[in-house]
Amino acid sequence: MTTVIANDRTYRVPERPVVVFTVDGGDPRYFRDALQRGIMPRLALMLEAGGEFGVGASEVPSLTNPNNISIVTGVPPALHGIPGNYMRAPDGELVLLNDPKYLRAPSIHACFEKAGVPTLMITAKDKLRQLLGNGGVPSVSVECAAGAGLPAYGIESVEKLVGEPAPHVYDTFSSHYGMRLGLAVLRAVPQIRLLYVSLTDRVQHEYAPGESEADRFFTEFDRLVGEYLDAGCTVAITADHGMNAKHDSETGQPRVRFLADVLAAAGIPVQDVVLPITDPYPRHHGALGSFAWLYLEPEHRAPAREILAAVPGIEEIWDAETAATLYELPVDRVGDLAVTAAADTALGASATDHDLTQLQRRLRSHGGRHEQPVPLIVSQQIAGPLAARYRAGILRNRDIHDLVLNHTATS
Amino acid sequence: MTTVIANDRTYRVPERPVVVFTVDGGDPRYFRDALQRGIMPRLALMLEAGGEFGVGASEVPSLTNPNNISIVTGVPPALHGIPGNYMRAPDGELVLLNDPKYLRAPSIHACFEKAGVPTLMITAKDKLRQLLGNGGVPSVSVECAAGAGLPAYGIESVEKLVGEPAPHVYDTFSSHYGMRLGLAVLRAVPQIRLLYVSLTDRVQHEYAPGESEADRFFTEFDRLVGEYLDAGCTVAITADHGMNAKHDSETGQPRVRFLADVLAAAGIPVQDVVLPITDPYPRHHGALGSFAWLYLEPEHRAPAREILAAVPGIEEIWDAETAATLYELPVDRVGDLAVTAAADTALGASATDHDLTQLQRRLRSHGGRHEQPVPLIVSQQIAGPLAARYRAGILRNRDIHDLVLNHTATS
Repeated sequence: MTTVIANDRTYRVPERPVVVFTVDGGDPRYFRDALQRGIMPRLALMLEAGGEFGVGASEVPSLTNPNNISIVTGVPPALHGIPGNYMRAPDGELVLLNDPKYLRAPSIHACFEKAGVPTLMITAKDKLRQLLGNGGVPSVSVECAAGAGLPAYGIESVEKLVGEPAPHVYDTFSSHYGMRLGLAVLRAVPQIRLLYVSLTDRVQHEYAPGESEADRFFTEFDRLVGEYLDAGCTVAITADHGMNAKHDSETGQPRVRFLADVLAAAGIPVQDVVLPITDPYPRHHGALGSFAWLYLEPEHRAPAREILAAVPGIEEIWDAETAATLYELPVDRVGDLAVTAAADTALGASATDHDLTQLQRRLRSHGGRHEQPVPLIVSQQIAGPLAARYRAGILRNRDIHDLVLNHTATS
Repeated sequence: MTTVIANDRTYRVPERPVVVFTVDGGDPRYFRDALQRGIMPRLALMLEAGGEFGVGASEVPSLTNPNNISIVTGVPPALHGIPGNYMRAPDGELVLLNDPKYLRAPSIHACFEKAGVPTLMITAKDKLRQLLGNGGVPSVSVECAAGAGLPAYGIESVEKLVGEPAPHVYDTFSSHYGMRLGLAVLRAVPQIRLLYVSLTDRVQHEYAPGESEADRFFTEFDRLVGEYLDAGCTVAITADHGMNAKHDSETGQPRVRFLADVLAAAGIPVQDVVLPITDPYPRHHGALGSFAWLYLEPEHRAPAREILAAVPGIEEIWDAETAATLYELPVDRVGDLAVTAAADTALGASATDHDLTQLQRRLRSHGGRHEQPVPLIVSQQIAGPLAARYRAGILRNRDIHDLVLNHTATS
């Protein structure tokens, strides 16, 4: 049996293609609700036929970039280097974490490629593609599919391969286009052994489980999962993070604590409020999530903690070193204080910094501990050493490749 | 090289004795403070000579039994079965978790013994000895040292071996007696290869870093660590949990939220408030820690969450399944809601249930996330695959045996 080592874990090279789907914002409640109401028949059949539905935990901050990189590297942000979508670099510069230069660990896929095993990365958003494609992994995003090819596999136009132009990244079906693209490439290049498809959470940001647009999303997702199964793939499904309503259920107004405003009112000067959910897609969340980093002079940290601890909806407040330990983050890329919010509350910088009119619907978002539970679904029965942890619900989304490559009944 | 597998980790059998000390309530701040003020000269020398000082995280609830068992098994409570010092069993019975029948994983020491490698377990409190001695591991507690021997090693009286009768478990120096006992046995039985010494946190419950009684404790601890080093041992030091003041700094009154009283005032009936810190040593903490399990009828859980979320000093509230996932606990041994408190706050059942007059001094306690940071100190340089995680501060106290047996420069 051929194996490949990536970041100190050994992975078996599968005999048939393995695909891992990361449903952005794919809170376990979407899957439970859809299964209960019978709108995911292929998933239901897969589970009846020996597949497994489990839950696990994402990284905190529960955001897209750190979790996607954890999933494809198998290690926490402390080791792979990406603590958010956005950060304040040690030199004070505010940067989107889209550039591979920030990565400190190779992906499993890059290690497979190095060992001569063909792989593929597909993302809805292009911001992720640059990170996921690092190390010579053939990759394509729906957002930039127009005109894109996959030269490694002799594919000149991915749109031509799918037979349809790619939708806009804000389209309900842009995620499904990515799934169809993966299928089309897999059919053209059957020697691909490991495929990663990362969706977008635009639907989850706008619609709760059971809302009709969410149903449309998951019904089509289910149909496409069925196509992968029919094509002979082993399938695994996880999420980068969950999703919670963060608005007043009566008025529909976003429930936001603006940290700079709270501290200014208490006379505490703040250098920076860094919201690591920030990305190039403001319509999703208006940069409002449940996690914030504060940068303050040392003498202002203790008073700031005291003021913030008394604010309703603010939960955890940690200094940099403790945050790095508890959240497994790179200590050189975090702020002076970590602040997390309750399930129903988001954190902002100053009220004047956030254009809430960009939000299309009531605020639903993520970033804190309450969006940490994620699904860990596998089309095969789980066996071997990870089985007890899997059934106890204590694996992480970063374990999904280990789980599906090494610990299924057929692996 | 001989190796032994315990709970899916492989451990090297060391050529010279390895001792792991668990300083009960040994918050990293005690060590930092003592090192800064120069009152732990042997530890300082050890670090200068290539030893390492790191921090990591304990299990939550941050309590003695779950963490000691995690440390000696290398796995979380979800796998070893001990989620607290105390629990409500599935049949409704309230039980102290001192009986080996609750254990679901063997200790590393039991696996060493089975492989013919001599080991020893020493505890201050006898409540732990029964758990730690499980699987045929020679064990003795300071609390029950009078009249005790170690028949496995042909020792009839441990007190005679030490040359002095054991102090009362509430004595400041009972922990040190355990350390002396370990040294005495090691001198008599030099073939012992793995020794675990678990102290008591009575001093830490009463005295903050820098208070004179804490200084007496750590000065003598340091002197005895020096004796182990001089005896040729490799030394590792961790803690089961940290410790925080949970009283009003002006009045000295304990800052406690009584959960049954809060919910009764809101008209929400509670079946049980289970405080998993509860143990046979009420003078330490009066059963007041920063973690509680609530048992309620399903229809009362959402209203209870809402009421409790608004109480100052209450931080996290999780349903059973999410708590099991996030804290890595056995889901069949947890309550319907998990509640954690802020660093400065303790949780009680009802004011009438707690006899606060038993507290000898101002309340200092643990149990929540704020007591999760623990020291991970090793007398050798850390090398090998765990080194990056160690330096990033993201290991757990349950990794200490892996660290000291497999990842030091000389292991």
